[in-house]
Formats: sequence, structure tokens, C-alpha cells
Amino acid sequence: MDSSPTVLVTGGAGYVGSHTVVELLKNSCTVVVIDNLVNSCKGSGTLPVCLQRVQDITGKPVIFYNVDLLDSKALGSVFEKHKIDLVLHFAALKAVGESCQIPLSYYRNNVVGSIVLLETMKQYNVYKLVYSSSATVYGTPQYLPFTEAHPTGQGCTNPYGKTKYFVEEIIQDLVASDKKWSAVALRYFNPVGAHESGRIGEAPQGVPNNLMPYIAQVAVGERKDLKVYGSDYDTPDGTGVRDYIHITDLAEGHVKAIWRLMKQSEPRWQAYNLGTGQGHSVLEVIHAFEEVCGRKIPYEICPRRPGDIASSYADPSLAKKELNWEAKKSLSDMCRDMWRWQSQNPHGFEEEKQ
Amino acid sequence: MDSSPTVLVTGGAGYVGSHTVVELLKNSCTVVVIDNLVNSCKGSGTLPVCLQRVQDITGKPVIFYNVDLLDSKALGSVFEKHKIDLVLHFAALKAVGESCQIPLSYYRNNVVGSIVLLETMKQYNVYKLVYSSSATVYGTPQYLPFTEAHPTGQGCTNPYGKTKYFVEEIIQDLVASDKKWSAVALRYFNPVGAHESGRIGEAPQGVPNNLMPYIAQVAVGERKDLKVYGSDYDTPDGTGVRDYIHITDLAEGHVKAIWRLMKQSEPRWQAYNLGTGQGHSVLEVIHAFEEVCGRKIPYEICPRRPGDIASSYADPSLAKKELNWEAKKSLSDMCRDMWRWQSQNPHGFEEEKQ
Repeated sequence: MDSSPTVLVTGGAGYVGSHTVVELLKNSCTVVVIDNLVNSCKGSGTLPVCLQRVQDITGKPVIFYNVDLLDSKALGSVFEKHKIDLVLHFAALKAVGESCQIPLSYYRNNVVGSIVLLETMKQYNVYKLVYSSSATVYGTPQYLPFTEAHPTGQGCTNPYGKTKYFVEEIIQDLVASDKKWSAVALRYFNPVGAHESGRIGEAPQGVPNNLMPYIAQVAVGERKDLKVYGSDYDTPDGTGVRDYIHITDLAEGHVKAIWRLMKQSEPRWQAYNLGTGQGHSVLEVIHAFEEVCGRKIPYEICPRRPGDIASSYADPSLAKKELNWEAKKSLSDMCRDMWRWQSQNPHGFEEEKQ
Repeated sequence: MDSSPTVLVTGGAGYVGSHTVVELLKNSCTVVVIDNLVNSCKGSGTLPVCLQRVQDITGKPVIFYNVDLLDSKALGSVFEKHKIDLVLHFAALKAVGESCQIPLSYYRNNVVGSIVLLETMKQYNVYKLVYSSSATVYGTPQYLPFTEAHPTGQGCTNPYGKTKYFVEEIIQDLVASDKKWSAVALRYFNPVGAHESGRIGEAPQGVPNNLMPYIAQVAVGERKDLKVYGSDYDTPDGTGVRDYIHITDLAEGHVKAIWRLMKQSEPRWQAYNLGTGQGHSVLEVIHAFEEVCGRKIPYEICPRRPGDIASSYADPSLAKKELNWEAKKSLSDMCRDMWRWQSQNPHGFEEEKQ
């Protein structure tokens, strides 16, 4: 890359977004964040708490606008003020269960929001995009590990997953229609952990949707016990197997994707798996967490949940080959950093609010 | 049905929309049409030309608003003014080739437009919907004839087809989330022909995208010759086979879908094929048209177009069983009515504009 790009980060006050902003700043990018803060702690200053902490961690400034993607006028004014080289698009609603209850909100925020973003990028001649996608686009596995060539969009059992798939398709069609565009979709497996400083991490509002934050809240005494859904899957110990990836590894993958887009324009569309390539069962995660926090995590075996699959893990070799990226941190690292964050911030970012 | 419903028809000034409005009026529905007229002839009066003619044909009034679906405020005011019982949603951009060139416009108009419509329906407590879908959602055939159980969304090679598929999925998710909703998707095969009066019909702007309007324009001397794409398909004469359906048969299918939604609420989501069940090759259509118009249709054999499939035809038995609907008109009827419309209106609705 010739010079350090100015990167617009949508949803930059979220879990993946904020950790990625840290890596961008470490790599000398100028970072402009927009976020509507629906899932973030606003704080009392001009910055949301998590981004204030990102500045503390990195010693570098973050430019922030409280802007909703659906507000195309406000979004346009951000593009007016800054010469954006590239967009990292994280902003989305992400609770699978909720998406089944209020699907229109998910389609409105995730799909319409993305369309507004793409239209605005085009209007301001910004044609490089990294899209925050998910392994959920693969649906029911036809084979494992998932490669990027695995069919997508079939067996996505919830609206959240469909929005991720739809937006991938929209971006692909856009890229195919106009040579000015190039885009990378990063398909996340199961991001967990927190920044090693313990200052930023995942701060779910209400009951956590995902396993690791739930475990962490049980460990810290915020929740009573953990429900393990299904112990009769065709996996080594019968519980579901997922490919957990440390949030910092994931964040670094975005920096690598930016370098690729800045240097290389062909192929103009490419998806990459961001995972470790290694699956861990629910029970393995529980025991790894117990080891790190020195406490017992009480759990209860419950029936399978509809829509859950037995196993999901990545073939991450394409990202290694083409992005020069690979996950480095172990399950133990993930648990340790998760525990540091959770024990130092038992109520997430909320305390600084008061 | 207890009483005649008030039906909001989006895109009611279009080809399928206007013919359906005729059938709705014949069946004593109150019809409120909205259309942005991007693909229609505006005319000089308060009604677009095609709807003026619909009133002439039926002797019944059409309520019309020049409203774009994307304008949620204007859309809401229509729901304010009229107590809508049910919505028929036709409004969409529909040119396959164009959709590859300007995909964002297709996603904006067809997907975002549908989301705005669904949100507005919900706001005004209107929960019954007939959605204008397409056999294109089936993509590459895994078997023929297509039944409604055929997988959808795989092998949709163009953004137009994807918008139809995406909106089906959005509606399904919405119906699954809230028992107040019920919806029918009608998957059209290849609608052709015109109202038997010859007063309304398909009036493509620019070069027709579809076979039959192209043939009709060649027959009437508007275009020189016809290109037949592919003569080496695995079909009886080597040219592509499609399931052509008379537009009046298709329109009647919508009335039957309305009756179903008014009478019966379970299952709350159902898709139905609207086709004859019979495939005709390009050459068969050309010859049937020649017979009806008494002229030779010059044609040239060209290479296959990428994305085209060899054959597509419906299994229409579910619509027969559950909607008590079946196509009645023959290919000869389609050609005859198409020819009457085209020869009486060689420039579509344009002449009344001047």
C-alpha cells in the first residue's frame, strides 16, 4: 500500500467493529466510525465508551458520528466531510432469535441499510468494500470443513442469516455490473474473546445469544447456570462443535483484507473464511473456561434447538494463501481474554454511563 | 367471501396489473391502484391510458394514485384514505438484462419497495397479500415440470430473479413471525397475449425483453427480424421451451388467490405455479403467430445466451386443487389476442399521449 487509507467503519462501536478499529489505528489508518449506538453504550462524552477506550488503548484519535445507515442524508454528509478510501461494513442487527420475531426490522436495518450504504458509496466514488459476513450463509453443511466454494443461501433457517446472504449477493451483482467496484466478504465463524487489555469486549444487552458470553456471565455470577442445547449430536462428546476465533485474530483479518483491496483488484469479488479451522465442542469450551477462571461453570443439558447444526468449522486456507492471514490464538487465549474483560467489566460498558 | 373486498394493487398500470384490475372489477372488487408510471403511459387525464381503457372495458371506476412504493408517506396516505382488505403486489422493475447492468436500482425498487409496502401494511393492520412472483425463483431445474416444492434461489443468474426470490423469503419470514399475516405467492411462467378487446396489452418501452412481444413487433413491421438464441438445446426442435400462459388466465389466478385468502387462512403462506403445464418451443411460438397474423416472421438463429435454460414448464396441479384455477387458453388464443392488440396499437399506448 502506498499510503495509509482513510477507512469508514460502519458499526464501529460494536464488538467486532471496535476491535477492528484498534487494529486499523495500529496500522496507521485514519478511522471514521459511524454507529447508531442501538447496541452500544453511549457514554457521557462525545465518544461512546468503547471508542473512548479504543483511543486509550491505541493513543490515537477516532473520528465518530452517531449516524444511522438508513439516514442517507446524514451518511452522505460523512462522505462529504472525509475523503474515504474504503468502507468496512459491520453495522447490522445480529440476534438470531430476535430476527425470527421481528424479521422486517432485520431486513430493514441489514438489507436496506446496506443498499443505502452502497448507493452512497457510489455517489461519492468510493468503490472498495469489506463486508462483514458470516459462516451462517453456508446453511446446512454439505461437507466440512466449509470452503468458500460451499453453496450459500440454502438452509439459512433464520432471517439474520438470510440478510447476510442477501447482502453478499447484492454486492456480488454490483461488482459484476461495474468494474470500478471491488469487494471482499469475510465470513466469520464464532468470534469470541476480547482485547488483551481487558478494556473492550463483547457487551451483550440482555441475555447473551452466544455461548462464550453466556459462560462468562455465569462465571462472574451474573447468571445462574448455562443451558447446553443437545448432547446427542454426531460429535465426539455429543454437544455442538463450532470454530471459535479470537476477536483480535478476526480484527487482523480485516486489515489484511484492506491491504488486498488497496493492492490488488482482481478478482473484484472474493469471500474468505475467518476461522481457525479447528472445531471445539460446547463441553470443551466450558472446561477451557473453567480452567482459566478457576471456577466451576454449572450447566444443564437441554434438548436440541431447532435450526442448530451439529458441527461447523472453516477451511481457512484461502485466507492464508491470498490474505497472508491466519488465526494464531488458542481456545485458552480466547477464554483468558474473555475472562479478563468480563471480570473487569461485569456489566459491560454500563458502569461508565452512570 | 362475505362481501367484495377493497384491493390495493401496486403496479396496477403495468401489463399483469392492468389485466388483473379488469378481472377484479368484473368480480365486484373495489380497486385502488398505485403506480409510479415509470413503465406506463401517463396520458393526459387523471388516469394513465391503460387504466382509462380498463374503465372503458369494464364500465367500472378505478381509483388511482401516482405513488411510488419507496415514498412511505404517500403510500401511508393511500391506506389512510381507503380501508384496504388485501394487497396485490405487482410493482417491480422486470427487465432481466437491465437488472445485470443496474442491480442497485433493482434491489432498491423491488426489495426495498416491498419492505416499505409490508411495513405500511402492518402499520395499517392490513395482513393479506398476494405477491407477484416468478418461475425464475426456481433457477436451474433439478426436475421438470417445476412443482412448488422445487428448491428456490439456487441458480438465479440475474438480479431481477434474485429480487423475486428475496421478497418471497422476506414475506415467508414475516408470515412465520406473526399469525396475523397470510400471503400467497403466484409464480408466473411466461405471461403473453392481451385482453380480448385488444384495448390493453403489453407495451414494452424500447426493445422488448421477451419473445412474444418481439414477434408481435416484427409482425407489425416495427422491428426487422427476430433473433432465436440457441437451436442446440435438448428440446424437440433444439430451441428453448417455455410455458406460455394467456394474460387473462393469469389475471384470473389472482382473483382465485384473493378468494382463498379471504376464506381460508391456513396455511398462512403458500406459493402457486401459474402456468398451463405445457411447454412450447420458440419455433412453435413463431409458427403459431404466423398462422394467426398471416405473415412470415423472419428469424435468425444465434448462439445461446448465458443464463438461459433449455426448458421451463409448470406443474400447475396445486393451483387447480387449492385455488380451483386452471389455464384455459391455447397458444393460438395467446397469439390471436397478442396480434389483435399489437395491430390495433402498433406503438402501444403512446398514440393517445400526443
